[in-house]
Amino acid sequence: MTASSTPTRELSADRALPLLGMVAYSELAAFTRLAADSAIAPDLDGRLALAGFAGHALDHVYRITTRISELGGEARTTMGPFAGVLVEFDRRTQPSTWAERMLKAYVGYGVSDDFALVLSEGVEPTCRNLLADVMADHGHSGYVVGLLADAGALDATLAPRLALWGRRIVGESLGAVQGVLAAHPEIVDLLSRVLPGDEPQQRLFARLTAEHTRRMDRLGLAA
Amino acid sequence: MTASSTPTRELSADRALPLLGMVAYSELAAFTRLAADSAIAPDLDGRLALAGFAGHALDHVYRITTRISELGGEARTTMGPFAGVLVEFDRRTQPSTWAERMLKAYVGYGVSDDFALVLSEGVEPTCRNLLADVMADHGHSGYVVGLLADAGALDATLAPRLALWGRRIVGESLGAVQGVLAAHPEIVDLLSRVLPGDEPQQRLFARLTAEHTRRMDRLGLAA
Repeated sequence: MTASSTPTRELSADRALPLLGMVAYSELAAFTRLAADSAIAPDLDGRLALAGFAGHALDHVYRITTRISELGGEARTTMGPFAGVLVEFDRRTQPSTWAERMLKAYVGYGVSDDFALVLSEGVEPTCRNLLADVMADHGHSGYVVGLLADAGALDATLAPRLALWGRRIVGESLGAVQGVLAAHPEIVDLLSRVLPGDEPQQRLFARLTAEHTRRMDRLGLAA
Repeated sequence: MTASSTPTRELSADRALPLLGMVAYSELAAFTRLAADSAIAPDLDGRLALAGFAGHALDHVYRITTRISELGGEARTTMGPFAGVLVEFDRRTQPSTWAERMLKAYVGYGVSDDFALVLSEGVEPTCRNLLADVMADHGHSGYVVGLLADAGALDATLAPRLALWGRRIVGESLGAVQGVLAAHPEIVDLLSRVLPGDEPQQRLFARLTAEHTRRMDRLGLAA
């Protein structure tokens, strides 16, 4: 039990590689999605803002793949195992309005970032700091909060509909996390080091749900 | 006649704004397209490479809009008049294969960059140098040349089909340039300063066509 109560003593750079691969892939996916949002934004200001967030995500990919190389890994083979984790998520969460699309990103990236942050507690400090820096809000959340506040001011029926949509997205996002855990024993192992003891997955989901509730509060929506 | 034979003596920063707006918009469009290419690339290496080219295009947008601000302009209003110039071009040039999609980008960005480079000869040196730097090849052309060489090695019937497709794309690209000139007298004015004398548009098209032929040569395809 001593070993499991002092998990940070057993850090190794290698253990970080799967997490770095997972986050690099999800940042690449975020780049693709934010660029697609930019392409269909309702005006040029929106196009530029969303393109900027896409640019941040791409910058994250480079920073993380640089670290992967420093640790002796290779970007493609480290990211590759995580390709396609969002296919099912996307199939089940097709937004029908711009507000739904923006909320999906806000909720989905939130869960994904929080998942990575929890896991980052189990890796060596350089990687942990890099991930904390990458996950720091670069303005996208604030952008969505402002946009949905404006939309809500124009349409009073929007809030209850978005609250429902948010619940659906968070449910599917947690499902996607579960999918990652089911397919990646190395990530489960890392999670057990971060949350030693019984039922680490249940405690992970409690944390992700609590963070989600705080994010929905920020929008003035019931989680 | 003295004035028109020494056009570079009449440079003004203001004259650069429409050109900067045009190029910033076309780099934003390139960002969107390259990101969309990345999203559907056949493998992770392709996704990363194309995402990188999209990142370069976005960086160009920022560098140009920074210069627009330095000259007292505003990004949105300077870029705005050029929004939508590619809608008709895209409607008429839907690629049906990955090779056609890549060749469309190679030919289309080539014509667009050459058009901007010709016009840049008529603006003040800081803008001219910025545009030359932005238009310098950041690897995308080499990437497409390599990719199409590989594809051609696998399928001998590809070259004649791509040569035909290239002719269609260059024709439509020149049509898009003509559309810009028809809608933007300030760009026509700049062109007349760069190519003083009779028929500047004909001479522009001769230059764009010659550059296109060199680009197709590089692919080993008949222009």
